[in-house]
Amino acid sequence: MSEPTLYPESGFLRIRIDLAYDGTNYAGWAKQPDQRTIQEEIETALAKITQSPIETIVAGRTDAGVHASGQVVHFDVPENSEIKELLFKLNRMLDDDIRVLKVTVMDKGFHARFSATRRYYTYKILDGNQVVSPLHRVDVAPWYRTLNLDLLNSASALLIGEHDFAAFCKFREGASTVRNLIRFNWIRDDEGYLIAEIAADAFCYSMVRNLVGAVVCVAEGRNNLDWISAMLANKERVPDSLVFVARGLTLSFVEYNGEMVYG
Amino acid sequence: MSEPTLYPESGFLRIRIDLAYDGTNYAGWAKQPDQRTIQEEIETALAKITQSPIETIVAGRTDAGVHASGQVVHFDVPENSEIKELLFKLNRMLDDDIRVLKVTVMDKGFHARFSATRRYYTYKILDGNQVVSPLHRVDVAPWYRTLNLDLLNSASALLIGEHDFAAFCKFREGASTVRNLIRFNWIRDDEGYLIAEIAADAFCYSMVRNLVGAVVCVAEGRNNLDWISAMLANKERVPDSLVFVARGLTLSFVEYNGEMVYG
Repeated sequence: MSEPTLYPESGFLRIRIDLAYDGTNYAGWAKQPDQRTIQEEIETALAKITQSPIETIVAGRTDAGVHASGQVVHFDVPENSEIKELLFKLNRMLDDDIRVLKVTVMDKGFHARFSATRRYYTYKILDGNQVVSPLHRVDVAPWYRTLNLDLLNSASALLIGEHDFAAFCKFREGASTVRNLIRFNWIRDDEGYLIAEIAADAFCYSMVRNLVGAVVCVAEGRNNLDWISAMLANKERVPDSLVFVARGLTLSFVEYNGEMVYG
Repeated sequence: MSEPTLYPESGFLRIRIDLAYDGTNYAGWAKQPDQRTIQEEIETALAKITQSPIETIVAGRTDAGVHASGQVVHFDVPENSEIKELLFKLNRMLDDDIRVLKVTVMDKGFHARFSATRRYYTYKILDGNQVVSPLHRVDVAPWYRTLNLDLLNSASALLIGEHDFAAFCKFREGASTVRNLIRFNWIRDDEGYLIAEIAADAFCYSMVRNLVGAVVCVAEGRNNLDWISAMLANKERVPDSLVFVARGLTLSFVEYNGEMVYG
């Protein structure tokens, strides 16, 4: 059934953890000097439990203030490591704004980042200058103007497909901005919140918040649909578009085409 | 159209505020010495804005740790009070775990407590020892056993109607425990959370959390439906029933039969 691994004697276990976090009090996923980050918290806890330094690889490097309900991370531990009750031990050690949902021993070919085929995000907005409920204060972006749901969806539909999203990404030297946007649609839920589901093979830096900002410009009547198409075609950021705040954004799901991938 | 008020010259305005809060960091609604309470925060802010002491009357006196998405409060201010932009001013002054959703000048006969005809609560549980998402950590009660949804609903249905709920209320000398439970039903949402909607004319002290605890005893298979019926009939608290934690509970809505009620 399965191919033999290339290094059967390599003596380590590849562990996947699925985790969720409230990103409010963190400077994002990635470790940075003098900053509190999710990666640092996870790696510190893992090092204490396994009694050895651990380096993690993440599926989606979320920015400061961005949340996750289905983030995926992998790391390796020596084969003889004590990983029994790892989920329980991690959750006891971590603050309650980070929770490990699942721990799985994977095939060595599994890679949290490179094996991932799609990332799904949600973005939540409360428009029309309504007051956000305190129970949603960490994961909803308030907006003062009223947004037209049909226009949100029409503008978002123009962006779906494989494009160079340079106009919607923070510039990074040498980084490709070609991405395949698979899903970008909005609903208004029972409580009146606007919720976007946004999926792509991968996202460039700050891309989701740029996409949301651009379609909001259309949905509030400030710009038209041609303005979106022109931005996409011109591949250049325009100063009158918006970048929406991190707190409305949640990494909800990472998709893998079969969990067994050989390296 | 409307009857004349009895005291047309009384010189005050009756104000209704609709508010929401995350009750995590408060000792409940009602003022208590040396405790941080929602009432104290609201009254302190109101006194600063109106430059006079304010006493508030609330629709539902929520316990420590209980949340609200649709709490209703009234208070009176001198007729010449500066109440323009009261919502904006209150929200600027209050911590962001309390939000005023709406400010309305009411007829003097309106009473937040006595005019209310129904109170609606929701209760959220995540069962089967699953890890609660950090974004839900303040408003979901985790439960280690798996709960059967049909049994939750069957047990809850037995409690609907006008009954003496003495078995489900914390004893208070002289307080009636006869209530009319109008709605008590459960769904499991897309994310797997169990959500109860619970409505009554009014609730006794700790009644919602007792009702939830009792039906959970049935839904986890520990007690049967007859046990619920017997508890209700015997009007006595039983030691093997449960009282569920405050944090799963949210006061979601207060119903008034017409907002204009004459005193």
